Amino acid sequence: MQASLQSEDFFERDARVILAHSTRRSGLLMAAGMDHVVEGPDGTETVSESGVIKFLAYGWSSQRLLPAVRDQVVAALTQARHTGLKGLLDDQRAYLDEFWDCADVELEGDTGLQQAVRFALFHTLQAGARAEQRAIAAKGLTGPGYDGHTFWDTERFVLPVLTYTAPRAAADALRWRHSTLDLARERAAQLGLRGAAFPWRTIRGHESSGYWPAGTAAFHIAADIADAVVRYQSVAEDEEFEREVGIELLVETARLWRSLGHHDAEGRFRIDGVTGPDEYSAIADNNVYTNLTAQRNLRAAADAVARHPRHAAALGADLEEAASWRDAAHDIVIPWDEALGVHPQSEGFTSHQRWDFDRTEPDRYPLLLHFPYFDLYRKQVVKQADLVLALHWRGDAFTDEEKARDFAYYESLTVRDSSLSACTQAVIAAEVGHLDLAYDYFGEAARVDLDDLGRNTRDGVHIASLAGAWLAAVAGFGGMRDHDGNLTFAPRLPPRLERLTFRILFRGRRLKVEFDTNEATYTLLEGPPLVITHHGDRLEIPADAALTKPIPPAPVRAAPTQPTGRKPARRMS
Amino acid sequence: MQASLQSEDFFERDARVILAHSTRRSGLLMAAGMDHVVEGPDGTETVSESGVIKFLAYGWSSQRLLPAVRDQVVAALTQARHTGLKGLLDDQRAYLDEFWDCADVELEGDTGLQQAVRFALFHTLQAGARAEQRAIAAKGLTGPGYDGHTFWDTERFVLPVLTYTAPRAAADALRWRHSTLDLARERAAQLGLRGAAFPWRTIRGHESSGYWPAGTAAFHIAADIADAVVRYQSVAEDEEFEREVGIELLVETARLWRSLGHHDAEGRFRIDGVTGPDEYSAIADNNVYTNLTAQRNLRAAADAVARHPRHAAALGADLEEAASWRDAAHDIVIPWDEALGVHPQSEGFTSHQRWDFDRTEPDRYPLLLHFPYFDLYRKQVVKQADLVLALHWRGDAFTDEEKARDFAYYESLTVRDSSLSACTQAVIAAEVGHLDLAYDYFGEAARVDLDDLGRNTRDGVHIASLAGAWLAAVAGFGGMRDHDGNLTFAPRLPPRLERLTFRILFRGRRLKVEFDTNEATYTLLEGPPLVITHHGDRLEIPADAALTKPIPPAPVRAAPTQPTGRKPARRMS
Repeated sequence: MQASLQSEDFFERDARVILAHSTRRSGLLMAAGMDHVVEGPDGTETVSESGVIKFLAYGWSSQRLLPAVRDQVVAALTQARHTGLKGLLDDQRAYLDEFWDCADVELEGDTGLQQAVRFALFHTLQAGARAEQRAIAAKGLTGPGYDGHTFWDTERFVLPVLTYTAPRAAADALRWRHSTLDLARERAAQLGLRGAAFPWRTIRGHESSGYWPAGTAAFHIAADIADAVVRYQSVAEDEEFEREVGIELLVETARLWRSLGHHDAEGRFRIDGVTGPDEYSAIADNNVYTNLTAQRNLRAAADAVARHPRHAAALGADLEEAASWRDAAHDIVIPWDEALGVHPQSEGFTSHQRWDFDRTEPDRYPLLLHFPYFDLYRKQVVKQADLVLALHWRGDAFTDEEKARDFAYYESLTVRDSSLSACTQAVIAAEVGHLDLAYDYFGEAARVDLDDLGRNTRDGVHIASLAGAWLAAVAGFGGMRDHDGNLTFAPRLPPRLERLTFRILFRGRRLKVEFDTNEATYTLLEGPPLVITHHGDRLEIPADAALTKPIPPAPVRAAPTQPTGRKPARRMS
Repeated sequence: MQASLQSEDFFERDARVILAHSTRRSGLLMAAGMDHVVEGPDGTETVSESGVIKFLAYGWSSQRLLPAVRDQVVAALTQARHTGLKGLLDDQRAYLDEFWDCADVELEGDTGLQQAVRFALFHTLQAGARAEQRAIAAKGLTGPGYDGHTFWDTERFVLPVLTYTAPRAAADALRWRHSTLDLARERAAQLGLRGAAFPWRTIRGHESSGYWPAGTAAFHIAADIADAVVRYQSVAEDEEFEREVGIELLVETARLWRSLGHHDAEGRFRIDGVTGPDEYSAIADNNVYTNLTAQRNLRAAADAVARHPRHAAALGADLEEAASWRDAAHDIVIPWDEALGVHPQSEGFTSHQRWDFDRTEPDRYPLLLHFPYFDLYRKQVVKQADLVLALHWRGDAFTDEEKARDFAYYESLTVRDSSLSACTQAVIAAEVGHLDLAYDYFGEAARVDLDDLGRNTRDGVHIASLAGAWLAAVAGFGGMRDHDGNLTFAPRLPPRLERLTFRILFRGRRLKVEFDTNEATYTLLEGPPLVITHHGDRLEIPADAALTKPIPPAPVRAAPTQPTGRKPARRMS
């Protein structure tokens, strides 16, 4: 049922209109003729209450009947008229001011990227804050692309950003996932598995991908969800969420992994026949990203059972089951290519033939539109970060040397035919010392829609790539990681910026991190003292105070190469 | 265009009719009222020429116009009326007598299987002899199953039988394949490959399988075709065929393999991302059956180029290209599981989880109708002989001990959800010493349609399984192999038979092989002396003479086990 009402008939005058979607209030749009916007002496714009003002409200429900939805819309309008346009705008402004206070990222030296990062953050918030326990779609509410479906990238890319900037939105999104658990349990049973098999592509919780090698087989979504749960719980310390939502999501995803994998004769826990994030490979054994994130998922679920034995018991989980998860996590297979000294993305991957990039003309990208999957799947060619995604989110499982070698290896194979790649390449490029390259990827991720880089922004913005712009800045140049709930930073300024500042919310605190080439300053804007790590050194930041630390020089490594013609555009600031 | 005419109006009398399809004459059916069949004093039936006799003729062409097809039909009828019914029937009888003289398989001690084997041979002949350079379909011309399509099993199962019993039919079938070469070359180019990629499923040469993981990816059809070419050339010594058809098929399939595979850093030649014969696995690396048959294909093509340099030059093939095929063949990867001491069907296969056969209820077979491919592909469960098929056709690449171990291993995993499995299991069971088990599989292959074992004979007979009955008798109990053109036998009588006799055509000879438990007799019915091998011993059989040799006892090995409930029915003779 859908309903919308207008408070006044639409005015027919030839007037420009400001139209704003209230991020704060459900189901409300505001519109006013531009002639009602009054510029104040200080340059700020306010809105006069005289003249024609329109309020537009909308409502939607998959369950309630039209009259109820209509009542909801009428109530929203009544409330809006009571508050008045100025009140609503003040309200909205206050809401956004608060968000920017918690979330803003400031770049000195590149106004184009500054604009892009704020655009990105605003859209990430818009997509998340008003999701109201419905899925955050790949395009948010900005366009018809992907027909409104949501994918694994919401949990993987969008929720980490919201967790540190608008945590309630992250919780809402996970509560929506939780609300689909029954369908995910049904799906698991249908596949002969235990626990919950969440859909790779969905609107309401059903698997909507008809192509199982790149849909159902992409089981890593379970671990992506679990990771988002663990992060949110750690950052927001929301115990109600943990009891109502978190523990069940962790337990059911752990059960999925335990039944999906098996122990081989040597006692190693294998997860065979699955598809990792990279869509140019499918149905492979022991995908490193999948196995490492499943490992964390299994351990987090075991921890949750130990922490909440009564809630676990209600889910039928006990310490024996938890122990079987820990054992599986301990035994999990992580393939390694001894000769090359790199991790194969999945077992056997590094033995495959390399794609012939030199003979692939520029107009043949994206490859999926010009070559059969038969050919893509069997060769070394990477659509989007997969092993490199593991280097980011399970960086604790790799040595620095492994990261550098792995990154260089996959950099030479990754064509970025997906917008879900540049931000992760930025994060790891920055970590291993390729700051200029990281900056180029950062630019690509952040400006994907402002510059219409994929020539498809008409279908809606790329929410995950925009969230990725924040990740590139904060996890990339800020070096922020949160493995096992420990907040660590390793800031390094890209040569093309003069200064970078970001803010995050963390366990009742508001932390500002700012750095230039030489030093980083950590300021607790709010909350009790906080222990972090700066380039490996433990730091305790006192309440309401700042600590400044020097930044060690970046490691010097040979520049990696990209497939012919697939080097990112040089970001001109 | 299709046309049919009747020589007389159909008689309406209530009379039984004999209706026979002339195997010898194109496009002719004969019909006569049963009251025209006269029983002679010796019990044989002849046909009186008096009364109402019907001739029915048919014609078909995808290219000629209706009048031309009609003319062809009229000509067939005119000729038939000229010859007369008796002449036609004598003709047909002589044709079949000659076939049985060359091809009959006699089993003493099991009339049910004797009937089945002759039924099988008759249908194999019917499907092949009148194919007239069109495809031999999976159901021959007996029913609508598979919509008239032909698959790889024609070359793999049917042509070896026809090669040794009705070689002209084998040549015709391969000439049909050859006629589709342009389409196969186009397909290869479309897939970014060289040479010819023959369709897994087709009517006229186009790939008609829409599911590429089990269609296009099943590249082994190229080697199946090449193997049929090599066998036919070796057995028929048909040099015209070799020059016109054989060399081009070998060269173009070798080119396919050379471009499909690649050398890895250790110099091994890998064929990744393909599907072997077993349809419960897909898109795997280095399938043993595929690699071993490709190896033979590559070598045969290189030999052909060396033998026919001028014809090769016309195809653009020279000794350098041939050398690259030999190198690839030499370097080809054959996976081996050191811990288990068996060959993985494909790389990694033996590390996968075993299907839970104990918990699979009998009514859940065939598995493909009850479980998702996601589940089947990632586990150790075999629909049909795959590694065991390699043990048969590339038995020269395995030791006796490997064969026994491999057979036992795959026997415990093979559910025979395909009718293309039992005959091959019979062949290898017999070779490694499980003669009773081989006999049961022989019965299943031979009686698939007489007993409607798949409950789908209404869709047409299973030509490949019927051909497989001959293979089970001749290659299984007769132990006949023809690796590298050497004819070898290792006869062993199954306990439930008293004697087994078969005949084959080979290089201008007609050879009869008969054996009981103790000894085998090789008789040259026709042609010059012949060198064969009997249980490893070289024998020269003189012209028009017989040699009798004792049969060594079969090796004694522990009986293998099948998946729960999938043991073949015990054949009660």
